Amino acid sequence: MKALVYHGPGSKSWEDVPDPEIQDPTDVVVRVETTTTCGTDLHILHGDVPAVTDGRILGHEAVGRVTAIGDAVRGFAVGDRVLVPAITKCGRCEYCSRGMPSHCQTVGGIGWIFGHLIDGTQAELVRVPYADTSLYRLPDGIRDEQAIFLADSLPTGYEVGVLAGNVRPGSTVAVVGAGAVGLAAVLTTGLWGASQVIAVDTNKFRLEKALEFGATDTVEVGPGSVDDVRALTDGAGVDVAIEAVGYPETLRTACAMVRPGGTVANVGVHGVPVELPMQDMWIQNLVLTMGLVDTVSIPTLLKMVASGRIPAEKMGTHSFTFGQMDEAYDVFANAADNQALKVIITPN
Amino acid sequence: MKALVYHGPGSKSWEDVPDPEIQDPTDVVVRVETTTTCGTDLHILHGDVPAVTDGRILGHEAVGRVTAIGDAVRGFAVGDRVLVPAITKCGRCEYCSRGMPSHCQTVGGIGWIFGHLIDGTQAELVRVPYADTSLYRLPDGIRDEQAIFLADSLPTGYEVGVLAGNVRPGSTVAVVGAGAVGLAAVLTTGLWGASQVIAVDTNKFRLEKALEFGATDTVEVGPGSVDDVRALTDGAGVDVAIEAVGYPETLRTACAMVRPGGTVANVGVHGVPVELPMQDMWIQNLVLTMGLVDTVSIPTLLKMVASGRIPAEKMGTHSFTFGQMDEAYDVFANAADNQALKVIITPN
Amino acid sequence: MKALVYHGPGSKSWEDVPDPEIQDPTDVVVRVETTTTCGTDLHILHGDVPAVTDGRILGHEAVGRVTAIGDAVRGFAVGDRVLVPAITKCGRCEYCSRGMPSHCQTVGGIGWIFGHLIDGTQAELVRVPYADTSLYRLPDGIRDEQAIFLADSLPTGYEVGVLAGNVRPGSTVAVVGAGAVGLAAVLTTGLWGASQVIAVDTNKFRLEKALEFGATDTVEVGPGSVDDVRALTDGAGVDVAIEAVGYPETLRTACAMVRPGGTVANVGVHGVPVELPMQDMWIQNLVLTMGLVDTVSIPTLLKMVASGRIPAEKMGTHSFTFGQMDEAYDVFANAADNQALKVIITPN
Amino acid sequence: MKALVYHGPGSKSWEDVPDPEIQDPTDVVVRVETTTTCGTDLHILHGDVPAVTDGRILGHEAVGRVTAIGDAVRGFAVGDRVLVPAITKCGRCEYCSRGMPSHCQTVGGIGWIFGHLIDGTQAELVRVPYADTSLYRLPDGIRDEQAIFLADSLPTGYEVGVLAGNVRPGSTVAVVGAGAVGLAAVLTTGLWGASQVIAVDTNKFRLEKALEFGATDTVEVGPGSVDDVRALTDGAGVDVAIEAVGYPETLRTACAMVRPGGTVANVGVHGVPVELPMQDMWIQNLVLTMGLVDTVSIPTLLKMVASGRIPAEKMGTHSFTFGQMDEAYDVFANAADNQALKVIITPN
Repeated sequence: MKALVYHGPGSKSWEDVPDPEIQDPTDVVVRVETTTTCGTDLHILHGDVPAVTDGRILGHEAVGRVTAIGDAVRGFAVGDRVLVPAITKCGRCEYCSRGMPSHCQTVGGIGWIFGHLIDGTQAELVRVPYADTSLYRLPDGIRDEQAIFLADSLPTGYEVGVLAGNVRPGSTVAVVGAGAVGLAAVLTTGLWGASQVIAVDTNKFRLEKALEFGATDTVEVGPGSVDDVRALTDGAGVDVAIEAVGYPETLRTACAMVRPGGTVANVGVHGVPVELPMQDMWIQNLVLTMGLVDTVSIPTLLKMVASGRIPAEKMGTHSFTFGQMDEAYDVFANAADNQALKVIITPN
Repeated sequence: MKALVYHGPGSKSWEDVPDPEIQDPTDVVVRVETTTTCGTDLHILHGDVPAVTDGRILGHEAVGRVTAIGDAVRGFAVGDRVLVPAITKCGRCEYCSRGMPSHCQTVGGIGWIFGHLIDGTQAELVRVPYADTSLYRLPDGIRDEQAIFLADSLPTGYEVGVLAGNVRPGSTVAVVGAGAVGLAAVLTTGLWGASQVIAVDTNKFRLEKALEFGATDTVEVGPGSVDDVRALTDGAGVDVAIEAVGYPETLRTACAMVRPGGTVANVGVHGVPVELPMQDMWIQNLVLTMGLVDTVSIPTLLKMVASGRIPAEKMGTHSFTFGQMDEAYDVFANAADNQALKVIITPN
Repeated sequence: MKALVYHGPGSKSWEDVPDPEIQDPTDVVVRVETTTTCGTDLHILHGDVPAVTDGRILGHEAVGRVTAIGDAVRGFAVGDRVLVPAITKCGRCEYCSRGMPSHCQTVGGIGWIFGHLIDGTQAELVRVPYADTSLYRLPDGIRDEQAIFLADSLPTGYEVGVLAGNVRPGSTVAVVGAGAVGLAAVLTTGLWGASQVIAVDTNKFRLEKALEFGATDTVEVGPGSVDDVRALTDGAGVDVAIEAVGYPETLRTACAMVRPGGTVANVGVHGVPVELPMQDMWIQNLVLTMGLVDTVSIPTLLKMVASGRIPAEKMGTHSFTFGQMDEAYDVFANAADNQALKVIITPN
Repeated sequence: MKALVYHGPGSKSWEDVPDPEIQDPTDVVVRVETTTTCGTDLHILHGDVPAVTDGRILGHEAVGRVTAIGDAVRGFAVGDRVLVPAITKCGRCEYCSRGMPSHCQTVGGIGWIFGHLIDGTQAELVRVPYADTSLYRLPDGIRDEQAIFLADSLPTGYEVGVLAGNVRPGSTVAVVGAGAVGLAAVLTTGLWGASQVIAVDTNKFRLEKALEFGATDTVEVGPGSVDDVRALTDGAGVDVAIEAVGYPETLRTACAMVRPGGTVANVGVHGVPVELPMQDMWIQNLVLTMGLVDTVSIPTLLKMVASGRIPAEKMGTHSFTFGQMDEAYDVFANAADNQALKVIITPN
C-alpha cells in the first residue's frame, strides 16, 4: 500500500510500504477513507517528538471500513464503517477504568500511539490494536467529513476545554486562540448552556469563524485584550478561560481574564516552562486544568452531530487526495494565511 | 479595652483603645476568650500587606461570648458562646450564594476583613459585622482550645487542601510542608478515606507530629524527595499533592510528585511568580487549585471535633495570656525552632 | 389597599385590607406590578392546605418596586425593581447554607410562606421578610411578563426537573405532563444539551406548545405511551423522565420509560400514596428525585432570559387586571380547555 | 470435577460434572480456592429466578488461581491468584463505558451471569468470560477469607448503599437491616467520614456486630424505631438511610427516617410492589436510589483491606469444605438463628 512515512526532521514521503496485518487477536485492519492532519504532526516533522523514529507512518485520525479482524474481536465485523480515534485504549487498566485512557498503561503508557509509537492513519490501511475498546461504529447519517473531526479536534476542544473548564448554564467563557481546537471548544461550549462565549485571536478570519461557530463576542489580541474581556463581562472577568495556543504569554492572558472562583482550561501544547503570577493568583480561588484528550466523549459528540446540534463539517475548510499529501501539509502548516482550519484527505 | 495595635512594619503594641460598639443593625460585639496568631499576622508585620494601616487591631481568629447585638440580629443573643471565623460573609452576594464567601463582594471584595480592613480579634472585645451569616454557635462539648483552630487553620487545610485536592477513599496524598496548615490537612484528610498520607518537610519535629496527626509515611526534604514519594507509591506518584509552604520550589516539588490525572492543591501564600514546567505538565492531565479559605466547612468540622474524629486541640502547642502577646508572637514567628504549631492566647 | 383574600375552601374576594408595613428591620415592602396564579393557589381554594386560614392574602409570585425598607436592609433601596420569588430565605440556617432554602428553618420550617404562612402577592402591596437574601433585582432588559415566571414555574421545572434529573449533553428526556411546569422543564432542558426531549400529554394544544418550546417529539397519552417513548429511543428508554402531573399513574409511567441507570425527577405535587413496582425497579439502577423548588437558579435563569436563550414570556398566554382576579382564576383553573398556560395579572 | 448443580426449586446437589474449558479467546479458567453463598442463591433455590434452569452450577463469588487462558487474554497468566467478582463486564458497551457494568449489554443484558446465565463458582473450576476486563489480581497481603467478600457483599453495601446514598464527611446515616450487606455498608461508611452510623435491626447479635463494625448507635426495630432514630439526631432525621432488607415496610421505614434533602439508598432485593407516601415525601426534597452492584469499587476496597482500614474478614463467621456444601447453605439460610453473617467454603 501507499502511506506517508516519516524520515527524520523535515522529511516525509508518500511511498510504498507493506500492507499491515493482524498481529494480535484483538486487532482489526481498517481501510482509510478519510484522514486529516493535526498540529502534532507538524511538531513531529519539526523533530520535537523524539519517540517518533525514521520509518514511522504518520497520522492519528481516520474514518474507514474494517477489512480484517482478529480472532478475539467481538464488537466489529469486516465491512463496518468506523471512526479510528487518536487514543487507543485497553479498557481494563487503572487509567482506562477511571475514564482516562489518555494514559492507558497497556497500549504504551500513553493512549496516543498512532503515528507515534505504531504506524498511523495517513495511509491506505491501518492496523488498530484493542479494536473492541478503541473503535467507534459510525451511524449512516454521519458523513465522513463530519466524523473525521471527532477523531481528535472536537473531543480535544470539548473534553480538555469545555468539560475540564466546568462550563455550566450561564457561564461566561473566553477562548484564547481560535484555531481548529479553539474553535472546537467554541462549537461545543453551547452544549453546556454558556451565556457568553468570547473568542480571542490575532486573526480576523478566525474571529469571523468563531462568530459563525457560536461565539457571542470577539476580541482582537492586543495590549488591551484582558481589559476588553473584562469590559464584556461587567468588569468581572469570565468564569472559564480556555487556552488553545500553548505559549507562556497566552496562558498568562487566560489566567488574567478569569474571575475569582473561575477555571483556566489549558488545551495548548506547551514547549517551554511558563511563569505564572502566583503572588496574585493564589488568592483568586482559581483552578488550572490541563491534559491530553481521552476521546471518551465521542459517543456524546456523535449524537450531537447526528442531531444537527454540532455542525462538525464546518471544521473542514480544504480537501485533498492521498496523492496531494504534501499540499495538504503545506496548507495546514500555514493555516492562518490560507484561511484554513482542518484539511480533509481522501483516496481520490 | 486593651488590644494589639499595628503601628507600621515591625511595630505593634498591646495598648488601650476605645471599646468597639454596634455600628450596623447586623453587628454583634464579642468578648474574646481565646485567640491565636496566624502566618498572615507575620506577613502584615513584615509590611507585606499594605491594606493594613497604622492603628489597626490585628487578628482574625477568636472564640468568645456575645456582649451586644444589633437590632436586626436574629440568630444570636447576648451571652452566646461563638466562634469568630477568619471570613466574614454577607450571605447574599453572588459569591456567598455560590458558597465562596472568601470573595464576598459586600464585606470588602474579600471575606477576610478582621485585622485587615477592620479591627480584629487580638483584643478584649471585637465588633463582628454580618453576625447572623458569619458567626457559629459553639456546642458545650467543644472546648475553647479545640474551637479556636476552626477559625482559620483547620478549614484552610481542609477546604483549600483536602477538598480542593479532591481526596477520595483510597487516594494517596502527599502534604508538602508540615507546619500548622499542612498538619491541618493531614488531620482532616482521613475524613475522606485517603489510603496513604505522606508528610514532606525539613523539620523532624513536624514530621513526628505528622505521624501523630495521621500521616502514614514521612519524607525529609532533600534532592531525592520526589523519588522518595514515588517509591512509596509503587513508582506512580500520588493522587493528590497539597502544597502548604508558598515557595516556587515547593510548588514545583508538589507538581512533580503527582501521577497523571492527579491534583495539586496549593494552600501556600505566594509572594513571587512561579515558573512551572508546562512542557512536561500539560500532557499529565493535572489539575492545579489554589485559593483563600471560605470557612464554609466549619459546621462539618465542628461535628467531627465534637465526635472526637478530629483532635483539633493537638494544634495548640503553647499557651499565653493577653499580657504575653509579644512572647506569643515570638514563639510563633520561630515555630520550627520552638517546636510550636499554633499558640493559644487567653485573657489570663 | 386591595388584595385577594382567602375565606375558607371555595371562597376568596378582591377586597380592601390594611396596607402592609415594615415589621422587622430586614423587611421591605414591594408595590406589585405583575403577579400570577399557580396550581398551589387552586389546591388552597380546594381546602387541601389547612395551614392557610381565613383572612390570608393569596399568591407567591410577583414583580414590583420597593416602596419601603427596614433599617437593616443593605441590598435594596426604595424604587428598585425586583422579583419576589416563591421561596423566602434567611440565608444563614443549615438548609440555606446548603443551597436548599425550600426548607429554610428560620422563615417557617419551609421556604414557601407567601400566601401560605404570611400574606401573599396577589395584592397591591406585599411585605417581604429577609429581603436582602430573598429578593432579586431585575435588569432593565427583562420585561415584567418575562420575569414573573421566574418567581416559581421556571425554576420549578428547571431545578426539580432538569437539574434534579441530571440532564447532560446527549441525554434523552421525557416530560410527562406538558402543563406550565412541564413546559418550563421543556424550555430549560436545552441549557444542558439534551439530544431528545419527548413531551407526553393528553392535550394536543399542550403538545403543540411543547414543540414550540423545544421538544423534539411528542407522544399522546394512551395505553401505548411507554412503548411509544421506547420506540423513539431505539428501544432503550430515556435517560431522564420528568413527572410534572402528580398522580400515581403518571409517576409509574415515568418510571417505566426510563432506561437502566436513568433518573425519574418527580415535579408533581402528590395527594395520595403511590405504589411503585420495586420488584422490577430495584435492579434497574434508577434514581428517583422529588422536592419543592429552592429558586436558587434564578440568577442563572435571569441571564438566560436576558440573553434570549429562554423565551420566558411564552409561558404567559392570558392577561388580566387586578379587578379581573376572578376571571384570571377561572381561566387558569380550566387551563387545558382555555388553551392557557400561565396568566399575567397587572394593576390595569 | 465436582460442582453444586441446581435441579429445580428446592433441589441442588454436589456432583460430578465435566471440567469447564476455554470457549472464547477472552476466557480464562480458574481453580476455586474459596467461595461463599449469597442471598441470591437462596432466592434461586426458592424458584424466584426463572432464568436459572436445571443443570446450572450455582454461585457468583470466588477467589482462586488461573489454570488456563484464551489466546486473547493479556492481563492474566496461568498461576495468577484472582478475585472472580459477581459482575462480568465486556469493558466496551455503553453501560461498561459509563462505569455501570451491572447492565453490560454484551455479556447478557445484565452483568450478573455466574450461577445465573452461565455456570458459577460453587465448583472446583469455573470458566470466566471477558477475563481481562472482569477479573482482579489479588495482592499477596490479602488473604482468601478477606478477598472473598469483595466479590459481592462489600461492594454491594458500599456502592449501592454508601456511594449511592452520597455519604459525606459529617453525614448521619441509618442502616435498616444489619445482615451481611447492611453490615458491609456499616463497615465501609467510615471511608466517607460519616459522623454517626445507626444500625436498625430486630436481632441483638446483628446489632452487636454492627457496633463492632463501626456503628455508633443501634436501634431495635419496633413501633418507635423512626422516633428513636430521630431522637438520636436531635429530632432532624438522618442524612442518609440505607435499606438493606427488601420489604415494603422496611423501605417505608427508611424513607420516614430521612431529613429534608436526604437520600434513601435501597440495597434490598424486592419481590413485591411498595406503596410510598408520596403525599408526604414529594415536598421533602428526597432522593431514592436503587440498583444492582457494579463491582467497580473493588480496586478501592482492595486498597482499604490491604491497609487494614476495612477488616473484611469479620464478615466470615462460619467455615465449611466443598463436601459440606449443604451444611453451608443451611447455616446461611438461617443466618440470624445461627449468628452467621457470611460463610467461607474451601476445598478442604
